[in-house]
Amino acid sequence: MALMSILVPPDAATLERLVRIALEEDAPWGDLTSDTLLAADTKLSANLVAREDGILGGIDLFTTAMRMADPTTHIAVTVEDGQFFTSGTVLASVTGSARAVLKAERVGLNFVQHLSGIATLTAQYVAAAAGTSARIVDTRKTTPGLRVLERYAVRCGGGRNHRFSLSDAVLVKDNHLAAVLAAGAANVTDALKELRQRVPHTTHIEVEVDRLDQIDSVLAAGVDTIMLDNFSLGDLRRGVEQIAGRALVEASGGVRLERIAQIAATGVDIISVGALTHSVRSLDLGLDFTSTPPVPAS
Amino acid sequence: MALMSILVPPDAATLERLVRIALEEDAPWGDLTSDTLLAADTKLSANLVAREDGILGGIDLFTTAMRMADPTTHIAVTVEDGQFFTSGTVLASVTGSARAVLKAERVGLNFVQHLSGIATLTAQYVAAAAGTSARIVDTRKTTPGLRVLERYAVRCGGGRNHRFSLSDAVLVKDNHLAAVLAAGAANVTDALKELRQRVPHTTHIEVEVDRLDQIDSVLAAGVDTIMLDNFSLGDLRRGVEQIAGRALVEASGGVRLERIAQIAATGVDIISVGALTHSVRSLDLGLDFTSTPPVPAS
Amino acid sequence: MALMSILVPPDAATLERLVRIALEEDAPWGDLTSDTLLAADTKLSANLVAREDGILGGIDLFTTAMRMADPTTHIAVTVEDGQFFTSGTVLASVTGSARAVLKAERVGLNFVQHLSGIATLTAQYVAAAAGTSARIVDTRKTTPGLRVLERYAVRCGGGRNHRFSLSDAVLVKDNHLAAVLAAGAANVTDALKELRQRVPHTTHIEVEVDRLDQIDSVLAAGVDTIMLDNFSLGDLRRGVEQIAGRALVEASGGVRLERIAQIAATGVDIISVGALTHSVRSLDLGLDFTSTPPVPAS
Amino acid sequence: MALMSILVPPDAATLERLVRIALEEDAPWGDLTSDTLLAADTKLSANLVAREDGILGGIDLFTTAMRMADPTTHIAVTVEDGQFFTSGTVLASVTGSARAVLKAERVGLNFVQHLSGIATLTAQYVAAAAGTSARIVDTRKTTPGLRVLERYAVRCGGGRNHRFSLSDAVLVKDNHLAAVLAAGAANVTDALKELRQRVPHTTHIEVEVDRLDQIDSVLAAGVDTIMLDNFSLGDLRRGVEQIAGRALVEASGGVRLERIAQIAATGVDIISVGALTHSVRSLDLGLDFTSTPPVPAS
Amino acid sequence: MALMSILVPPDAATLERLVRIALEEDAPWGDLTSDTLLAADTKLSANLVAREDGILGGIDLFTTAMRMADPTTHIAVTVEDGQFFTSGTVLASVTGSARAVLKAERVGLNFVQHLSGIATLTAQYVAAAAGTSARIVDTRKTTPGLRVLERYAVRCGGGRNHRFSLSDAVLVKDNHLAAVLAAGAANVTDALKELRQRVPHTTHIEVEVDRLDQIDSVLAAGVDTIMLDNFSLGDLRRGVEQIAGRALVEASGGVRLERIAQIAATGVDIISVGALTHSVRSLDLGLDFTSTPPVPAS
Amino acid sequence: MALMSILVPPDAATLERLVRIALEEDAPWGDLTSDTLLAADTKLSANLVAREDGILGGIDLFTTAMRMADPTTHIAVTVEDGQFFTSGTVLASVTGSARAVLKAERVGLNFVQHLSGIATLTAQYVAAAAGTSARIVDTRKTTPGLRVLERYAVRCGGGRNHRFSLSDAVLVKDNHLAAVLAAGAANVTDALKELRQRVPHTTHIEVEVDRLDQIDSVLAAGVDTIMLDNFSLGDLRRGVEQIAGRALVEASGGVRLERIAQIAATGVDIISVGALTHSVRSLDLGLDFTSTPPVPAS
Repeated sequence: MALMSILVPPDAATLERLVRIALEEDAPWGDLTSDTLLAADTKLSANLVAREDGILGGIDLFTTAMRMADPTTHIAVTVEDGQFFTSGTVLASVTGSARAVLKAERVGLNFVQHLSGIATLTAQYVAAAAGTSARIVDTRKTTPGLRVLERYAVRCGGGRNHRFSLSDAVLVKDNHLAAVLAAGAANVTDALKELRQRVPHTTHIEVEVDRLDQIDSVLAAGVDTIMLDNFSLGDLRRGVEQIAGRALVEASGGVRLERIAQIAATGVDIISVGALTHSVRSLDLGLDFTSTPPVPAS
Repeated sequence: MALMSILVPPDAATLERLVRIALEEDAPWGDLTSDTLLAADTKLSANLVAREDGILGGIDLFTTAMRMADPTTHIAVTVEDGQFFTSGTVLASVTGSARAVLKAERVGLNFVQHLSGIATLTAQYVAAAAGTSARIVDTRKTTPGLRVLERYAVRCGGGRNHRFSLSDAVLVKDNHLAAVLAAGAANVTDALKELRQRVPHTTHIEVEVDRLDQIDSVLAAGVDTIMLDNFSLGDLRRGVEQIAGRALVEASGGVRLERIAQIAATGVDIISVGALTHSVRSLDLGLDFTSTPPVPAS
Repeated sequence: MALMSILVPPDAATLERLVRIALEEDAPWGDLTSDTLLAADTKLSANLVAREDGILGGIDLFTTAMRMADPTTHIAVTVEDGQFFTSGTVLASVTGSARAVLKAERVGLNFVQHLSGIATLTAQYVAAAAGTSARIVDTRKTTPGLRVLERYAVRCGGGRNHRFSLSDAVLVKDNHLAAVLAAGAANVTDALKELRQRVPHTTHIEVEVDRLDQIDSVLAAGVDTIMLDNFSLGDLRRGVEQIAGRALVEASGGVRLERIAQIAATGVDIISVGALTHSVRSLDLGLDFTSTPPVPAS
Repeated sequence: MALMSILVPPDAATLERLVRIALEEDAPWGDLTSDTLLAADTKLSANLVAREDGILGGIDLFTTAMRMADPTTHIAVTVEDGQFFTSGTVLASVTGSARAVLKAERVGLNFVQHLSGIATLTAQYVAAAAGTSARIVDTRKTTPGLRVLERYAVRCGGGRNHRFSLSDAVLVKDNHLAAVLAAGAANVTDALKELRQRVPHTTHIEVEVDRLDQIDSVLAAGVDTIMLDNFSLGDLRRGVEQIAGRALVEASGGVRLERIAQIAATGVDIISVGALTHSVRSLDLGLDFTSTPPVPAS
Repeated sequence: MALMSILVPPDAATLERLVRIALEEDAPWGDLTSDTLLAADTKLSANLVAREDGILGGIDLFTTAMRMADPTTHIAVTVEDGQFFTSGTVLASVTGSARAVLKAERVGLNFVQHLSGIATLTAQYVAAAAGTSARIVDTRKTTPGLRVLERYAVRCGGGRNHRFSLSDAVLVKDNHLAAVLAAGAANVTDALKELRQRVPHTTHIEVEVDRLDQIDSVLAAGVDTIMLDNFSLGDLRRGVEQIAGRALVEASGGVRLERIAQIAATGVDIISVGALTHSVRSLDLGLDFTSTPPVPAS
Repeated sequence: MALMSILVPPDAATLERLVRIALEEDAPWGDLTSDTLLAADTKLSANLVAREDGILGGIDLFTTAMRMADPTTHIAVTVEDGQFFTSGTVLASVTGSARAVLKAERVGLNFVQHLSGIATLTAQYVAAAAGTSARIVDTRKTTPGLRVLERYAVRCGGGRNHRFSLSDAVLVKDNHLAAVLAAGAANVTDALKELRQRVPHTTHIEVEVDRLDQIDSVLAAGVDTIMLDNFSLGDLRRGVEQIAGRALVEASGGVRLERIAQIAATGVDIISVGALTHSVRSLDLGLDFTSTPPVPAS
């Protein structure tokens, strides 16, 4: 069962919905330049070329943009999502109506460059944790409206996902516990036990702690994951020992690439990294036209 | 007529549409944690606090998220979009239902951190061009679906906008010209004159050139802006001299922050910077809760 | 922490979206009868009255329908969702524009009757399992488009929810395992261990088994819940003993109301009941007009 | 002109819209189980099998769900909507991508089970009225958002439809008349004549009466249908005699299956039955997989 | 019961939906002129003034546009839909944010001018038929997407509506009958009787005939309305006599304003006029600003 | 470079979106007549025939309507958008399912008749300006929601377009200038120079003047177009002389067809005509059925 098989992209309906929004945004009433200058039957060919090394993410969005601009566009994809490539590699080739290719170019590039940026960045974090059992996961710090894509890009880079949203898993933070106790709960343990009774049995319960002395009362409630938030390396190690496999351990907060190896070495199970999605540099990819004649000096 | 008055944010309907998408994405069927743990009448107060220096962008999205989660939430905004602030500054204060504030927290932060990141980055480019007449402008390399917000964030940082989309201005690139000539046009000048006859009289025509010797034939057609793409500093200067005010001059391609001052000094009118929107680090802002008791050691 | 506090209805935006669809369906271009016969300023008052005993579910949809037809309609709700009432009880009172109340009447009733039907039916199953630790849960056999409402109605009746969808928890069925083994997996245990590595750490893993001899290999993989599908009462008891607390145990398949007590007595943790939502009789509620004069004999 | 020809299902755009909502509801971000466990090229075959006798309704929704999950899925339908089948009958066969079939399975079943439940129930009412000229019709007591489907299912069961909505026919109820008289109308007859002048000439006018003595003034206005609401069998007969063909006669209110034959025998033209759509038991249909190997004992 | 009471405009949700589309069309990313030139707190007042005589239609769309641009805009409506006014009359007054009023101006005017154009034109046809019992009705020749508004405008002008759509009444045309007979129906009468059995009992059945000799077979089937299509005045009279009140009679085809009186005098019940909505001149209404100072000579 | 090549219709997604709205409006729950009377396999053929001379506009909407009703419909288009035709010309031929063709007929006709009406009217204005350099352009006085189509129809008639919306070009009117001066701007020239600094460099700036003495201060700011609003022919000539090529000159206001030649002869560059889109008579086109047998006399 190869790793690649988990790289199931969002379904076609989702991709089409998002690409349509982008195409309408970028050409609400046509491409004034190409529609005016180019005849309807002008064809062109172009290559999607890497201008730097990276990991591919979101190639289906590029092809969807091309096909939505013109369903007859021919596209050959030569590198798959999740694969590493070097600068200069041709990632895909396109042949079709010049108007359609030029209309979809920027939208297609915006998607695949953004997602490949996430995949490439994620791969660096994953590499830094290599040799440990720690998994690098994303957070909810994603670009509004694009979460399903960005989570996929994290997987393209070898990372894993945290919960999708507020609706599909419980993450109890310090403010929740403070409010519960202020509201009269006897103690954290009982409140968490009560919580377990209320949510679906399929709900994973994770609880954030800020100090080692909070761990025992949380563990006593039988939670699934304990998040050690902003812990020193020493405290992370001590937390892992204290929890001793009775719950998964997640390290969170201020996780920079240069600290990943050390954090992973503490024995934590999960390292969540907001930067995977909230601070993304688009990977430098470009569309090189191959079939039209060179521009004369006029 | 103060600069600030051009900072008209996208209208309320647009903000609500985008925030609704984000809220539904982040809580498709409720906030499992807060809805289960917190009573409906639990209140809390919190401050939106800067954890680093920056320029504010998109505060209305934060307040819209809070109000859409609960229209009765009280919000006081203390810093305005476009203003500089230092780390530690309270940007806004919120008081309302704990469930609503916690539900909207991440969505509100994701928007305002992303847009403030753009505003802050833009301000660095604008500062680098200070003392020249060059304006820093954005490109179409924006996050799909968020262009109207990101263009606004560029203005918050003191930048200006380029055309919105393929529909509202002409930008003739090398491939267009090559295709036109291949299709039998006599020369570039005539093709561009013909173009002018076809588009609305309100359409700005910009033409990209790659070499100095292409400028004259473009100028002869009476275009509005000439884009000098990937020109050396020397060639930029020579291009400005050659054009001599008969069209606006835009420098484009490989524009890094450290080169801005030199590019601006060549006399170009416009410097377009893809990095303003395609490689954005979210500014570090956080929501600090002020009214709930500290978490006891349990 | 009272039970009632978990009855958080879907948020207002969701309710409004669903009610709007229903109002447009029921009056695509106005209420021909009322708009033609009644003057715009005609007022009326009416009571929402129970015509049989039951548990209330979805009263907010009734009030949303009334308010969307006319925001100035006055509504007083006198029974809360999740409460038991007897035939004849006034559940809510409405006063407002006759046109608006009559336009929203059927839509409001359709929602609250359907959801109260679910709540009332669920309560019977819950009562049958009383005194055991078994929780009654719903399934994905819901009315297309109304799942979020119907799950809420199940909670109104004292039930609990299973996973929301295919996206938020894993449920491995026999066909999945057959396909995995056919595809070359060494054995079920290893396949399930591999699965755990791939999904988010917050993902609950439930596996369906058809025979007692399948339990050990599933348990060996460390899953969260084992579903005993279509087991006899004896085999359910034996399954519970064999699993011995190492996973939650769900009984599923052919669960009829008259067997609930016996199934619950076997020690299973969860009993999933498709009938809660796939075979619902609307509860008999009606709108009795109180303020208009009786119809004369003409 | 065979009966079957009136079974025109809602158009493809409508079916796709409703199925898309259901598919997105049931897998908002993918099928975690199948996408993770099954390779993209795994195929399977399955039969849609009846587990009880019934009348088929909505098979196009099942096939639409399968095709929307994967347009290459091959589906052979062997029983048509409106046909009777016995338990064990194969209704349709499916071969395609395992991921797609499993993703669409529940949605497809939820639709076809619900609509076949309505068709089967309707057929019982229709059979009970056999030998009379009474037609069994539905009401507006439908599931919000699914009316167009449920009305079609009623036709599949041999029933007929009442008006679609408040917009396409007039139905004057007691409250309308009371309000009109309270507002100063001279009498019911004149008010109804005035109504006729105001609505489109294509508008059918039906008036509800509660007592025999109200019939004459309604008839005098020249209405199209008179609804006898909650009449005894004796009064229904007397009403039919009194109206004497000058308007259609509809029996309504408290119509249970066991009374249909008697009501139909009174000579009424129409019997409207809310239960056809407001209290529906899903018909027991299942998807039996035929091409994957049996689960080994591991 | 005054005529005016049938002028119920489409509901607020419908108006808002259509106005939103128009506002987004007319300012997809803001009003570049006003947003740049005018301070946010600039106020203005303006009058909606008639520049020619006419009948008002759709004033609620004008006010909705103003309120959607800014909910705090103050609007006083001084003429009601359906009322006649002379050139120079102030129809409504507006005071509010200059940016908002200027942004909504064109959209608001486009709606109210178009609908008042329809109302005014309709009133001419209605006046031409005065003194007869013929009602002037619209057709399905409406502007795509605006039918509900244009039908309302016809009512504002004193006209009545025909069926709304293909879904709410039957209109059998010559091609239908030809196809039915070609398909083997014994004769028109039986085919129409069969049709009556299949459609809801609330469905009005209208049949188009092209010659007098077709009337008897249609009448024999008991239809509701007979449309005499493109009949001479003499044949219209003969048709009315032949039908003799056994069905409504509609004159259709080539109905020009100057022939209305003659057609109406033939005794037909209904005259349908496509021109009411397919060939509309916007009424000349304008927004005169009253509160800003006159433009100086600079 | 032939004129015809600028006739790029709105893209397929836009056409489909608008046609879908119209089809749903015209048959919200099916075509009651055709679905009931015609068998599913009945075929028919028909010609789209001109009943008067004109210019074709929007034929793609007619074909889109036919294809959306049934993708297998065969359509042969014999005249292209922008071409002149005489009465009696067959514009297109259709063969397909009778139900589908009849369902799409009215929607397809409504679009192509409306847009051909605009194209034909525009051509008259364009012809009147022949031999001058004046271009006939549209305005924002379009039918709400259909602007992109109507602008295209104007191009079909040989006209050109003005700005699309408030978002893509600046048009400063008298009220803007008055408000700016009232707000304290020193003079019009400086205010317009400031405006230029604020808007994107691609923004065309047009300014409306009401008197000749306003021109100099506007010209001094370096604007792109000056609109002479409601000028006499003499003043138009004087304005053109005064501006002397330093800006484009647009004549606007009260432009009737019979005055076009004189206005064009004054030397203005642009004549904007609201009537092109706000007062449109649908061109008389019809669908003649060719393959079904004649209606017998019954």
